[in-house]
Amino acid sequence: MNRKEFRDLASPDEAREAIDSLSLEGGVERVPLEDARGRVLVARLDAELDVPGFDRASLDGYALRARDTFGADEADPARLEIVGAVHAGEKPDVALAEGQAAEISTGAVMPDGADAMVPVERTDTDADGSEVLVRTSVAPGDNVMFAGADVAAGERVLGPGTTITPRDIGLLSALGIDEVPVRAKPRVGIVSTGDELVRPGEALESSRGEIYDVNSYTIAAGVEDSGGEAVLYPHAGDEQSEMEEILRTAADECDLVLSSGSTSASAVDVIYRVIEEQGELLLHGVSVKPGKPMLIGRLDDSAYVGLPGYPVSAMMVFRTFVAPAIREAAGVPEPASSTVSGRLARQERYEEGRHRLMPVGIVTNGDGETLVYPVDKGSGATTSLADADGVVEVGPETDYLEAGEPVTVTLFSPDVRPPTLFAVGEDDPTFARLLDGLENPRYLSVGSRPGLRRLRDGVPDAAVVTGPAEPDFEAVELGRWEREWGLVVPAGNPAELEGLADLVDRDLRFVNRTTDSGLRSSLGAAVADLAEQRGVDRHDIVDAIDGFDLGLRAHESPARKVIAGDADAGLGLRETADRLDLGFVPLGDQPIRVLANPDRTEKEGVRELEAALSDVSSAQR
Amino acid sequence: MNRKEFRDLASPDEAREAIDSLSLEGGVERVPLEDARGRVLVARLDAELDVPGFDRASLDGYALRARDTFGADEADPARLEIVGAVHAGEKPDVALAEGQAAEISTGAVMPDGADAMVPVERTDTDADGSEVLVRTSVAPGDNVMFAGADVAAGERVLGPGTTITPRDIGLLSALGIDEVPVRAKPRVGIVSTGDELVRPGEALESSRGEIYDVNSYTIAAGVEDSGGEAVLYPHAGDEQSEMEEILRTAADECDLVLSSGSTSASAVDVIYRVIEEQGELLLHGVSVKPGKPMLIGRLDDSAYVGLPGYPVSAMMVFRTFVAPAIREAAGVPEPASSTVSGRLARQERYEEGRHRLMPVGIVTNGDGETLVYPVDKGSGATTSLADADGVVEVGPETDYLEAGEPVTVTLFSPDVRPPTLFAVGEDDPTFARLLDGLENPRYLSVGSRPGLRRLRDGVPDAAVVTGPAEPDFEAVELGRWEREWGLVVPAGNPAELEGLADLVDRDLRFVNRTTDSGLRSSLGAAVADLAEQRGVDRHDIVDAIDGFDLGLRAHESPARKVIAGDADAGLGLRETADRLDLGFVPLGDQPIRVLANPDRTEKEGVRELEAALSDVSSAQR
Repeated sequence: MNRKEFRDLASPDEAREAIDSLSLEGGVERVPLEDARGRVLVARLDAELDVPGFDRASLDGYALRARDTFGADEADPARLEIVGAVHAGEKPDVALAEGQAAEISTGAVMPDGADAMVPVERTDTDADGSEVLVRTSVAPGDNVMFAGADVAAGERVLGPGTTITPRDIGLLSALGIDEVPVRAKPRVGIVSTGDELVRPGEALESSRGEIYDVNSYTIAAGVEDSGGEAVLYPHAGDEQSEMEEILRTAADECDLVLSSGSTSASAVDVIYRVIEEQGELLLHGVSVKPGKPMLIGRLDDSAYVGLPGYPVSAMMVFRTFVAPAIREAAGVPEPASSTVSGRLARQERYEEGRHRLMPVGIVTNGDGETLVYPVDKGSGATTSLADADGVVEVGPETDYLEAGEPVTVTLFSPDVRPPTLFAVGEDDPTFARLLDGLENPRYLSVGSRPGLRRLRDGVPDAAVVTGPAEPDFEAVELGRWEREWGLVVPAGNPAELEGLADLVDRDLRFVNRTTDSGLRSSLGAAVADLAEQRGVDRHDIVDAIDGFDLGLRAHESPARKVIAGDADAGLGLRETADRLDLGFVPLGDQPIRVLANPDRTEKEGVRELEAALSDVSSAQR
Repeated sequence: MNRKEFRDLASPDEAREAIDSLSLEGGVERVPLEDARGRVLVARLDAELDVPGFDRASLDGYALRARDTFGADEADPARLEIVGAVHAGEKPDVALAEGQAAEISTGAVMPDGADAMVPVERTDTDADGSEVLVRTSVAPGDNVMFAGADVAAGERVLGPGTTITPRDIGLLSALGIDEVPVRAKPRVGIVSTGDELVRPGEALESSRGEIYDVNSYTIAAGVEDSGGEAVLYPHAGDEQSEMEEILRTAADECDLVLSSGSTSASAVDVIYRVIEEQGELLLHGVSVKPGKPMLIGRLDDSAYVGLPGYPVSAMMVFRTFVAPAIREAAGVPEPASSTVSGRLARQERYEEGRHRLMPVGIVTNGDGETLVYPVDKGSGATTSLADADGVVEVGPETDYLEAGEPVTVTLFSPDVRPPTLFAVGEDDPTFARLLDGLENPRYLSVGSRPGLRRLRDGVPDAAVVTGPAEPDFEAVELGRWEREWGLVVPAGNPAELEGLADLVDRDLRFVNRTTDSGLRSSLGAAVADLAEQRGVDRHDIVDAIDGFDLGLRAHESPARKVIAGDADAGLGLRETADRLDLGFVPLGDQPIRVLANPDRTEKEGVRELEAALSDVSSAQR
């Protein structure tokens, strides 16, 4: 390939071919048997010995010569001389001649001369123990497990490519094999670039625009899920020589280097330059969404893939293009049966003509059918995959999917369980606690009004709403409770706030919630009341409150601004103030209600929710 | 419960209840984020911060006040003063007033005063870079990701019981969480008892009846598969005080102790006594096959389960009763969708009235239907599970299953892939090598005659046969080749054997193969020829060969007896002699043929085999 081909975006198939053309294999290593589970054998193993290694008594009884029991029965037992005894783990010190027997225990070595054994239950011994009476006749080989009957020396035991199960470990143990040659896991170096990245656990300076490094740990977990060994490199800032050194060290130590891009153009430049000088760029840019800015090439002797910087894009590209190549190199089979069929819950338009990898959630409707809804918080979102169950792929020729269209969801893993309950709406600490008692719920705190809208559109099972908004569609109330709202202020209420009027009349900094929130709606109603009381326009009140227009999405964020000293008061709940040891000025109580889609009331998760809610409601009575 | 209840065997449900009544849980531990994949969260995690932590520019361009762009378009751009620049990872050092803008890069912090941004593509700057012309109008919030838009502080992030996926690791990273509280894996101590057991890797003295310890490693792998942590204890001989000490140490250090029984009665006695003195026996003996001799109880503060000694029984009991309890304690969900429906390939009788756990293999017939066949090498077999794909459970009331009966197979794991080719028959080194090139074949070396019989009965796809036996049913020959057979002798042939006559006429120890083997059949024909040559009865020849009656099952075992000095000659192949650096006295060539079930010739694995065979056949031409 040469440079000019990069003008056009490559197709997904071309990207797969380019990755397939790289070698990610990690070679061979020998691992002890106790670490062999799940590893992939590289060579055929043949039995070097017989299992069992000797003719083995299957029961407790007497070893003897079968022909000496010919015709024996209860009435006419054969009488044999007892010439010794053999126990498990002992070398026999007797050999049998005609008319002789030896006591033998289960698992013991059959003595020379014996060709069968009889269980003790079918025998008696005479008074002095010198003779045994055998009350049955046996054939040669009866109750004896012959050497090699289980596994025979020279037998092909396990073939190359076998993924070692606990059962295979049993087989290897039986053969005395304590070390096996397996495919080394491909070593995958992970380099995140960007001056703004901070490793989790370290302090974050948000005012400088720092963000936690999401890609390193997520991609590392994905690498290990795919059978690779992840190696995290210290993340590179945008300084060129440092980044070059990290990339080349990773290439030297690993079979594959994955970088996930800084948003800065200079980082991309460095990567380009290093790959051009020290390797080969095979492909630049793939016609998929998300994931367009993808690089595939070689760096020194290592394979190299550059992932997009946005975490959702990075993970989708990793899953679609890189994980299969790592599995292939690791010899790990594609995960089985991980698709679900369903119907799209709402129409989807997409007209850019790129192959689309659409993260989706799934929910079961009242008839037990699977509804599939796209999960998307925008391309900058780092976390939306945690709310998704899998991916629907849509070809570039499709620019419109109808609601109800049948689609196939590839689950993120065969272990993915769709949520038993899917609820949306107001963020509320009581409800959050209640979810802890349910099995596998999903909750998206989108606010009361968007929650109502989504419930109306038929996707979630239930919505949590508060404030004046009423549903204009049929919904079943599963439960309700009251919560106290007001102003969260510093501990001890140093500014001595008494109510909303203080925010209007005094020079205090306030932090509001967004208009999606039911709390904001209740505040709006209180503002209207105050305006009426004073005989002024509502806007006059609003304009007089410093910060009324600045709404934060999270129910705790105003309280946190108060803690940080950025505000004198924030809209919030008594529960939040109590938990964060802050002061609280009550402005009212508001009912919070849980409404269900009428079609879903018989769904198990909804019934569990209803039961849990009845405890909350009755606790308040 | 008290002692008298043990007179009767407990039902499988009673055994499950007894295990459920024990506590196996391992408590809580904190693990670093990089080790959290697959672990189970014990507590709800709420967001302690907003993600992003600041209002974030989504593109490269200019931050501005939306109202300054009102009415702007291509023809009539808004003209704003450029007062500074903000890059990712930097704290803004500007604040915008009316009519002002700041250059901003993707991911950077929006400066104070700005409420929207416009992408660079929709702007121009004037000649000296002091002003920007904005050729579009934007609304407040356009191209800005607000603080908390992705995750809002206080939001419920992950619930207790969540099994952490790579996607969840992304979410946790974004929140800066580098350590999470997870369920500790239940520690499971494994104690194998029996003087005859030797750990894999150590030298085995077969003549003393020693065998490798299969259960320890197999059960340990099963424990880890189920989400537990396996702790192997030095295996206990039958010496009482030693065994007691090991059991009590294990009970002290672990949440569950699993012993797998010695076959000796004294070991059972010690376990009984220790449990009675230091714990409680809840249940003794379960009505399942295999697995009857099972103990459930407590030992000091640990749970205790005694597994049967035979590896296949131990593993079946472990899977059925113990693994689900470990998964439950570890918080690991039951593996999903791991059943396959099929039809029983042959009738099965079983009249003991116990609940039966029947290990089975599966094979696809020519119509794509799944045939299910029991896998059983007898109760002493250690390795038969490696040839099985799953288990069919049969209730105690069922004593007869017809061939063709529909059954449900619970696969050993969701990863189990039924073999692409199932072949049986003669053990042959050429064929064993050829299998290495196929994907996931299964081969049971049962010998030529049993192989033919099984092929006739319609279970395997193909059989490998040699010797005079001809199929009396329709079969398709997929390929054939010749192999040279004869007497394997010590290197250099020190006894100067020239042929079969030497075994008859001289005092030499010979080792034969079993009558199932095609080699044995060819030897039989050679014996008949020699008898005819000499004009004597066949029996006279046979009786004159020392060892003719002693047949070993494995194709390499006679050669290994020669190496060990236990025999002067063994029946075998030139290929075996060459590989083991032994001498060889040829007695003839025999054709070895691969025959297929006519219904399976279109099956992919059979076609692959045929292709591989054509290479072997043509190499001989």
